[in-house]
Amino acid sequence: MAERSDTSFALANALEVLERTPAAFRALLGGLSERWTAPNEGPETFSAFDNLGHLVHGERTDWIPRARIILEHGRSRPFDPFDRFAQVHESRGKRIGDLLDEFARLRTGNLETLRGWRLTARELALEGEHPALGRVTLAQLLATWVVHDLGHLAQTSRVMAKQYRDEIGPWRAYLPIVDR
Amino acid sequence: MAERSDTSFALANALEVLERTPAAFRALLGGLSERWTAPNEGPETFSAFDNLGHLVHGERTDWIPRARIILEHGRSRPFDPFDRFAQVHESRGKRIGDLLDEFARLRTGNLETLRGWRLTARELALEGEHPALGRVTLAQLLATWVVHDLGHLAQTSRVMAKQYRDEIGPWRAYLPIVDR
Repeated sequence: MAERSDTSFALANALEVLERTPAAFRALLGGLSERWTAPNEGPETFSAFDNLGHLVHGERTDWIPRARIILEHGRSRPFDPFDRFAQVHESRGKRIGDLLDEFARLRTGNLETLRGWRLTARELALEGEHPALGRVTLAQLLATWVVHDLGHLAQTSRVMAKQYRDEIGPWRAYLPIVDR
Repeated sequence: MAERSDTSFALANALEVLERTPAAFRALLGGLSERWTAPNEGPETFSAFDNLGHLVHGERTDWIPRARIILEHGRSRPFDPFDRFAQVHESRGKRIGDLLDEFARLRTGNLETLRGWRLTARELALEGEHPALGRVTLAQLLATWVVHDLGHLAQTSRVMAKQYRDEIGPWRAYLPIVDR
């Protein structure tokens, strides 16, 4: 029982972050000009717009679909590989406000699904097969969803900060984020 | 005149970010449990709570006060040094909601002050004396304010992400943010 209550607690903590991320992106990016949302950090890197499109794609194809594979098939059916650049075509022609709405809507539905499962400690310990990483657990997948959100919020902040690399003059020595 | 309109444009861009940051922090941290807001990244590093306290301190003592020194005294009066750990005592006993309110209120007032100055290109090029970095311009100070906001949003995301370093299992290989 101790194990079970620890794990439920961990899931509640994960949900705290997962339910906040869309609003954090909306507060940061909603109505922002393309001067901030369009530039990236170089070839094959993400702009703020791309970061958001990537999160939208993850809501559709990554977290809940993979959790469902674990719950239904365990390790017998490996996850489909995740296309890290799918948003390049999926986001084409969309505006940042469209993506913010889509992210919030998909996330709300996905968290309803997750809560509806009322996962037990036994289920959180179930294993799946990642196509490259091998054996993973459902708890690890859900924790990764949280870290992935936070990583892309940090990345979005960083790509925006870099737009002022030259504007800050000598302060660049104190602000490593523009050179990361 | 070309120079002037370029510079006004740059200030408008800076304001776009500066006016959004408090809401981004509120969306991310408002109502969040201490399990996420209290841990830091090791000795002499900031928790999410500390990051926010540090931003509050900056609103009181750094950006607008320094801009005022440049406008009134130029390089003849160096800036007061900024205490990077002032929030340790200033935030004591406060809750995250208190700091979020304080940050939003101070930022709103500071941006009113900034807008009220209706800075010209000539003024944005005025110089001040940083106690360690030497000669800086008002434009650089204001750009640094923006990057500083974004840097602490990234840092806040990172310290939170690190709380799940062990929970993500093999995905750690794909999520460098937990080891940065």
